[in-house]
Amino acid sequence: MAVLFRPFFSIDDPVWVPALREALGDLDFRVWPDCGDPADITAIVGWEVFPEDRNSWPNLKVILSLRAGVERFLSSPHYPPGVKLVRMIDPGLTEGMREYVAAFVLRFHRDIDRVETDAAAGEWPSSIPVGAAQRTVGFLGFGHLGQACVPVLQPFGFRLRGWSLSKKSVPGVESFTGPESFESFLAGTDILVCLLPLTPETENCLNAHTLGLLPRGAYLINAARGRHLVEGDLIPLLDSGHLGGAALDVFRREPLPAGHPFHAHPKIIVTPHISAITIPQTGALIIRQSLETILGGEDPPGLVDFAKGY
Amino acid sequence: MAVLFRPFFSIDDPVWVPALREALGDLDFRVWPDCGDPADITAIVGWEVFPEDRNSWPNLKVILSLRAGVERFLSSPHYPPGVKLVRMIDPGLTEGMREYVAAFVLRFHRDIDRVETDAAAGEWPSSIPVGAAQRTVGFLGFGHLGQACVPVLQPFGFRLRGWSLSKKSVPGVESFTGPESFESFLAGTDILVCLLPLTPETENCLNAHTLGLLPRGAYLINAARGRHLVEGDLIPLLDSGHLGGAALDVFRREPLPAGHPFHAHPKIIVTPHISAITIPQTGALIIRQSLETILGGEDPPGLVDFAKGY
Repeated sequence: MAVLFRPFFSIDDPVWVPALREALGDLDFRVWPDCGDPADITAIVGWEVFPEDRNSWPNLKVILSLRAGVERFLSSPHYPPGVKLVRMIDPGLTEGMREYVAAFVLRFHRDIDRVETDAAAGEWPSSIPVGAAQRTVGFLGFGHLGQACVPVLQPFGFRLRGWSLSKKSVPGVESFTGPESFESFLAGTDILVCLLPLTPETENCLNAHTLGLLPRGAYLINAARGRHLVEGDLIPLLDSGHLGGAALDVFRREPLPAGHPFHAHPKIIVTPHISAITIPQTGALIIRQSLETILGGEDPPGLVDFAKGY
Repeated sequence: MAVLFRPFFSIDDPVWVPALREALGDLDFRVWPDCGDPADITAIVGWEVFPEDRNSWPNLKVILSLRAGVERFLSSPHYPPGVKLVRMIDPGLTEGMREYVAAFVLRFHRDIDRVETDAAAGEWPSSIPVGAAQRTVGFLGFGHLGQACVPVLQPFGFRLRGWSLSKKSVPGVESFTGPESFESFLAGTDILVCLLPLTPETENCLNAHTLGLLPRGAYLINAARGRHLVEGDLIPLLDSGHLGGAALDVFRREPLPAGHPFHAHPKIIVTPHISAITIPQTGALIIRQSLETILGGEDPPGLVDFAKGY
């Protein structure tokens, strides 16, 4: 067997190749385009599939994604049939996500942007802030990443709830399961954190109707995928005051063009897809562990269910 | 004995008077200017002392501050000699402070403002973020408020250190004590959180020399008092790149005037003294507990040492 890495981003050659070589160096590790005999390749590590992937690797068994979200693999016409797919569950990526989510939960909870604007106008407030115990943070998508946010938000005293397709039991978190509980989940959520996988069912799930179900003044954090949000619906909801603010890390088109109205809107914070990045040191070790699990005949964590789409 | 409250802010009559009346209603509770016989007054609750306080209350034993920082009492020529002073240690205020500190620690740690600026210019990064385990948060002043930040920052994995005049032992936090350790404390601090009391010794402690001892690119959060910072020293340190950013909640003059250069500086976030506000529901209960402790002949938490100034 041989493992092939396909560099894609500018950091891949200087950063990922050495990290993977260190983690996989005792295996037959190859870096595209130095593939050797295509019949040797049993595993591919990468960010995408390419046209030649569909038919080039007669013995390919598994693709190990460096991304946590795998919709690009699943929707590609080049994905080789019958090959397993493993999405990245990287502790470094998870750490980044919980930092990003907590940073914006706290920023919205304390209304930092509004008071900063007031202060610049010379206005000093004298109101009593809302306590964390009166603020509900709702995770739309409550799998590995959402659950990882719980231990960093619970110490502040926030009320937490999570919506997911399958029932999740996490101490101190109110669980909402399936489409029938979606509206009641939204109706009690003050700060909505979207961490859903992108599937045909979740695409466009953040829209005028669903965001309209949130309480007036609610906040949105989208750290999942740009196609979860109907982008044209957002600004009217902010301008009407129905939403208090939005932090967006993902967009239908990335990079978001410099002149896009999201950049200039005073209630939108645009970040350039930095919420959660796979960290080479930890991610390469996860690739190693997944390969060992597969070689041992077991299913690794993150094995994708093609029917569910994640 | 009677307890007198002196309203000072606009929220005092609608909010604080009812909260105190509920907490103290079985005592002889009076609200200025309905003081009754001045000889009845043994305790005053308030935000300030006034010219008449020095000589009006022949039996006054204690002043209970609604503020955590008591320098306005200590520096007032109207402070009545021989009267004890208790600073506010309110769980609601403490909750607010740890939220504020964590919000800006995370915002600076993840470089949110810089990446937002990059994104607006259409620049999408591809760098690997610094992990929390590589980031040191240093509390300058490590008493009740600084220590309260520990359980909300530790779950992220930050390295924590605290500097204080008297030795503090907090698990997982590196302790620095006294003036001789001040420079080594600063030299290893990536995000400096000032929570010091304002005393003659701490005034102007954030200046070109001390901030210059921080590592290049360090961040400053000042949630203590404006007079800790030599305000004219800050912008040159930011413009040279020595400091990466500053979040300032307190100023020498408040409200900070609308045209002040801090408002427009891209590396300064000005908030209008909102980091930690005494919460009437919890604060009034603390006043109650302090009065009971004093009536029982004991010293309540927060009893001010006039020699130390806090």
